[in-house]
Amino acid sequence: MQPRKKPRSECPAARTLESVGEYWSILILRDAFQGFTRFDEFRRSLGIAPNILTRRLKHLTAQGLFKRRIYHRKPDWYEYVLTEKGRDFFPVVIAMFAWGNKHLAAKGASLLMADRASSRGVEPVMVAAGTLAPITLDNVVLVPGPRASRDVHRRLDAMRALRPHATV
Amino acid sequence: MQPRKKPRSECPAARTLESVGEYWSILILRDAFQGFTRFDEFRRSLGIAPNILTRRLKHLTAQGLFKRRIYHRKPDWYEYVLTEKGRDFFPVVIAMFAWGNKHLAAKGASLLMADRASSRGVEPVMVAAGTLAPITLDNVVLVPGPRASRDVHRRLDAMRALRPHATV
Repeated sequence: MQPRKKPRSECPAARTLESVGEYWSILILRDAFQGFTRFDEFRRSLGIAPNILTRRLKHLTAQGLFKRRIYHRKPDWYEYVLTEKGRDFFPVVIAMFAWGNKHLAAKGASLLMADRASSRGVEPVMVAAGTLAPITLDNVVLVPGPRASRDVHRRLDAMRALRPHATV
Repeated sequence: MQPRKKPRSECPAARTLESVGEYWSILILRDAFQGFTRFDEFRRSLGIAPNILTRRLKHLTAQGLFKRRIYHRKPDWYEYVLTEKGRDFFPVVIAMFAWGNKHLAAKGASLLMADRASSRGVEPVMVAAGTLAPITLDNVVLVPGPRASRDVHRRLDAMRALRPHATV
């Protein structure tokens, strides 16, 4: 599904896509965030073919986003419970949710997010922890981390030489 | 690439995946956020086959995330400039970036984000606009929007009846 000719990407966004960047995987996680844990819950919710669902659940478990837990003996039935790594994927789905409502719901939203306690609508925004300043294309920049290869340094130097982001 | 048997999904996260939920599309956007606009810049950066790159750029332009702009006459060469809709996709890539660095860089990060002015490291966090309270699995809930179908209402009722999110 994902291209794997090259060595593991150094960009963390690309790694994320290599790990869970697949249509069904992300929708399975979306449903898990809504409390679903069982094969049949996912299958009914997604209308997904059982063999594909089996494969994606196995993959997400192998990647450490789900942990299997037995909930019925003889026959043994397992449910798929989000790990901390899986729960931490929530902001990715939230960001997609917000973008979808802003740009793909011209006739009005079908689903919105609300604060669980106050029931007030919640509009997600990405900020920097600490300063709480919004993160925008204009105020952040990529810098090499401790494991940056020579290639990453070269890329970042090339980027600095580029014209700034143009918009229309 | 994306399943399109069903009518357009009512979930905005699913719609987003239907619109740009594809490995290369998201990496093309990632590179556009770094200032790339030209076919050869994307091709060299991604090591992507030209026919696939052509198809993905065409798709992202048709979806309104890029606008073509001529930058050379005879022959006419176009560059791909992010629209507001395209720029607004930035938080999705940021969220993937942060997750990748947290969970897929056990030996240390190759790339980090920093504030452009202060050069200080930036750790992204998703908060609610207005209150600036972090958005977590435990404090937000889905509610029907103005265009919610009967099916959405049914799903939300079923979710409310579910056990709360379990973790391991």
